[in-house]
Amino acid sequence: MADIARMAGVSISTVSRALAGNPLIPKTLRDQIVEIARTHGYVVNQSARSLRLRKTDIIGVVIPLPHQTGRLISDPFLLEMVGRLVDEIARRGYAVLVHKVIATEPGWLERIIQSQRADGLILIGQSVEHAALNAVADTYRPMVVWGAQLPGQRYCAVGGDHLEGGRLAVAHLAGLGRERIAFFGATEAPEAAQRFEGYRRGLAEAGLTFDPALVAPVSHSLQEARDDVARFIASGPSFDAVFAFSDVIALAALEALREAGRSAPGDVAVVGFDDIMLARYGAPPLTTLRQDLEHGAQTMVDLLFRRMAGEDAPSVMAPVELIVRGSSV
Amino acid sequence: MADIARMAGVSISTVSRALAGNPLIPKTLRDQIVEIARTHGYVVNQSARSLRLRKTDIIGVVIPLPHQTGRLISDPFLLEMVGRLVDEIARRGYAVLVHKVIATEPGWLERIIQSQRADGLILIGQSVEHAALNAVADTYRPMVVWGAQLPGQRYCAVGGDHLEGGRLAVAHLAGLGRERIAFFGATEAPEAAQRFEGYRRGLAEAGLTFDPALVAPVSHSLQEARDDVARFIASGPSFDAVFAFSDVIALAALEALREAGRSAPGDVAVVGFDDIMLARYGAPPLTTLRQDLEHGAQTMVDLLFRRMAGEDAPSVMAPVELIVRGSSV
Repeated sequence: MADIARMAGVSISTVSRALAGNPLIPKTLRDQIVEIARTHGYVVNQSARSLRLRKTDIIGVVIPLPHQTGRLISDPFLLEMVGRLVDEIARRGYAVLVHKVIATEPGWLERIIQSQRADGLILIGQSVEHAALNAVADTYRPMVVWGAQLPGQRYCAVGGDHLEGGRLAVAHLAGLGRERIAFFGATEAPEAAQRFEGYRRGLAEAGLTFDPALVAPVSHSLQEARDDVARFIASGPSFDAVFAFSDVIALAALEALREAGRSAPGDVAVVGFDDIMLARYGAPPLTTLRQDLEHGAQTMVDLLFRRMAGEDAPSVMAPVELIVRGSSV
Repeated sequence: MADIARMAGVSISTVSRALAGNPLIPKTLRDQIVEIARTHGYVVNQSARSLRLRKTDIIGVVIPLPHQTGRLISDPFLLEMVGRLVDEIARRGYAVLVHKVIATEPGWLERIIQSQRADGLILIGQSVEHAALNAVADTYRPMVVWGAQLPGQRYCAVGGDHLEGGRLAVAHLAGLGRERIAFFGATEAPEAAQRFEGYRRGLAEAGLTFDPALVAPVSHSLQEARDDVARFIASGPSFDAVFAFSDVIALAALEALREAGRSAPGDVAVVGFDDIMLARYGAPPLTTLRQDLEHGAQTMVDLLFRRMAGEDAPSVMAPVELIVRGSSV
């Protein structure tokens, strides 16, 4: 900067202010200094700039993982969501800092916030971290969470209508004459609990009895889910339909059914959740509850930038849509 | 830090050195200072720390996109590669800064390097940026590129054996008695040029004549590729097999063939490249040349950390493997 100041015949602080676009420096002088800096290859050290401006031009995307699930970022749903977010954030001239964290140690979220590496944070999956998110919501505003709406929630969340999705899935299967509808997936995390509640409500509305023997706590990972479903099939309860917590679990179920010599949708009709890219290409293609990830990512980034600008952007619950394909009809 | 120094009864510089793990401060005193800092919620401002240590604990993952292709990061191959890299880099305690850049403006790579936001860079896809990469290779060591090996290359690259892959694809199709084998995809970028060269070599080895009418410059995006293939089918040249530059193009070809009333593999046998997750789930499942992305990501991260440590890690060409599935037999 001293070199540029000498060449422009001004003080170092004038150079500094000119390069920061400070309107106190006349525009012609600013342009002249910027031109000198450009032609001499002056580049801003981003750490120094961030420290000075308290601005990083980075958005953090945080993927909190409960230790035991071993859910990799290679999970198709997470990947598609990260991809959509990167597209959307890059469009606004920001880079994306991806943090994959094991969200079991107390204070993990505070440490990310206080490291000041990003101007705002998007968390994918509130997982079982509702309390941790509420704890920071009052003091840290530029944060948006992909997840369910929960009672007493003070943070900004964007997510699908999981309860309605579960209800629609079961109404669809019951409407096809299916009577022994299984639920595959965990039922504890907020999103899972709401989809499971929708499943139970759908059964009640269709006049079907809830049978705990038809609830299988299947893993979220494709390989493990296939084994879990195979074990469930082998363990014996009869079922003629499946509502799976996710498309990944539904795809695993289709494989396990095929290996066990059962046809889909003939013997067992299968419905997933998410409408990931793989859903469309399955054999058979997968009936699912569509969450519009492109729109979801746009909404999250839009709300985040409004919150970064000091606005009080509210939570959004996005509609889900039943997409009927060959795995159920 | 002044508060911690007062509580510990030491100087500010001692606190600073203790928190940085400096062995000149006795271990018991260091532990005591770290404990005081922890219980009082002292967190390092990463911008300040990065500026002081010249270390960010961040690896940059750069996706250079030629403007005209409009290839989004939602592309399945890019997504899977980014996911594998995040898994691999997170395992080493680093965060990942994703840059999506339009690599047409001169100096784009120098600006990323000189911003000093990351301790090392991985570039996915050398695209047509061979010259830009060579230009920085001599002065910037901690960089690894996913891409082809090229003559006169001075940067470190990891990638599959594209030429051999193309040759294997055509040998497989010719071995099945196919004689009019089309090539779908661009032929200019380094990886594409090598796969195309392998295609021509495979034809020659099988005693088949190269016919330029069977080369269709199909887009890389799923939707556009489907339209491009539909136009190629409508334009009339007869063909009984396809070697596609990528699985995405091969999947698009399967859809376009189905819509045109042609069966696969009956009328047209199809082979892709990459073995993305979608390949396995296609209807029919896709024959393809497998690039082991998990191994590729591990290799890139391993070479990058060796280069960050000052070693001179060489380029690696990974073998590709023909995976035969229902789209060709």
